[in-house]
Amino acid sequence: MICFKPIGFFRTGASREEVKGSFDGVEGYIEILEEYRDGLIGLNGFSHIFIISYLHEVPEESRATLIVRPKRFLRLGLEAPEVGVFATDSPHRPNPIGLHLVRVNGISDGRIYVSNMDAYDGTPVLDIKPYTVSRIVRNPSFPDWYSRLIERGFE
Amino acid sequence: MICFKPIGFFRTGASREEVKGSFDGVEGYIEILEEYRDGLIGLNGFSHIFIISYLHEVPEESRATLIVRPKRFLRLGLEAPEVGVFATDSPHRPNPIGLHLVRVNGISDGRIYVSNMDAYDGTPVLDIKPYTVSRIVRNPSFPDWYSRLIERGFE
Repeated sequence: MICFKPIGFFRTGASREEVKGSFDGVEGYIEILEEYRDGLIGLNGFSHIFIISYLHEVPEESRATLIVRPKRFLRLGLEAPEVGVFATDSPHRPNPIGLHLVRVNGISDGRIYVSNMDAYDGTPVLDIKPYTVSRIVRNPSFPDWYSRLIERGFE
Repeated sequence: MICFKPIGFFRTGASREEVKGSFDGVEGYIEILEEYRDGLIGLNGFSHIFIISYLHEVPEESRATLIVRPKRFLRLGLEAPEVGVFATDSPHRPNPIGLHLVRVNGISDGRIYVSNMDAYDGTPVLDIKPYTVSRIVRNPSFPDWYSRLIERGFE
């Protein structure tokens, strides 16, 4: 068993329904706990960061989910393929860990103000990584089932 | 306390010194435990994936580290700034979680063969996320201290 402590929490005034219904995520901030705030030195200036979170509202039994039908297909009225959870961002997976790429709007007093937050208010944050050039892939390729989403203009 | 189980492990024939000394990472595979292999369905065709790992060789006391001098500066003979761990990929951080972007060379029998592995043999894998278009930032910006590394051609 591998255990972690939260370093902070997602804070947003948005309801769960607003977060679920949003394509681009919502605005808000990441509140870093006081004892970890020195870890933010030098983060200012990165336009984007990755947040690694614990998706705390996922029920324990959803850790058994291995196959899903991506919701984005259903929203577009396309026939959704059955795919494995590791090929998707489904929150239902053995370890309910979220990987969120957010835009940084400012940092002050232990708060990182961000856009594109796709997590519920109160979601625990486990780690933060800067969006560096080593995280840019020049010419990625994708499976056919996922390319059908891109063709519809859906990212 | 937030706890996870490994879904698999990094496997590489490379020594710790080879992994440390490599700029682009090493080749190897991610071995997914048998009970989680259905989660790989549909992953084939993604040229790149993110691996979220538990950096198991980081000593417990390193979780108290909040300020580091990035090693890449030292290697280039530049004066290294003191920055917070959340502005770096330092393994010494409150939760020793790794975020690895790797190229997928093939998937078979529960093994994901990859390049650019920057983790020691036996590192536990917690989760896998596909590199989708939503993880591409068009025009990211960076702090000055990090831009000095890019100017030297170092990513």
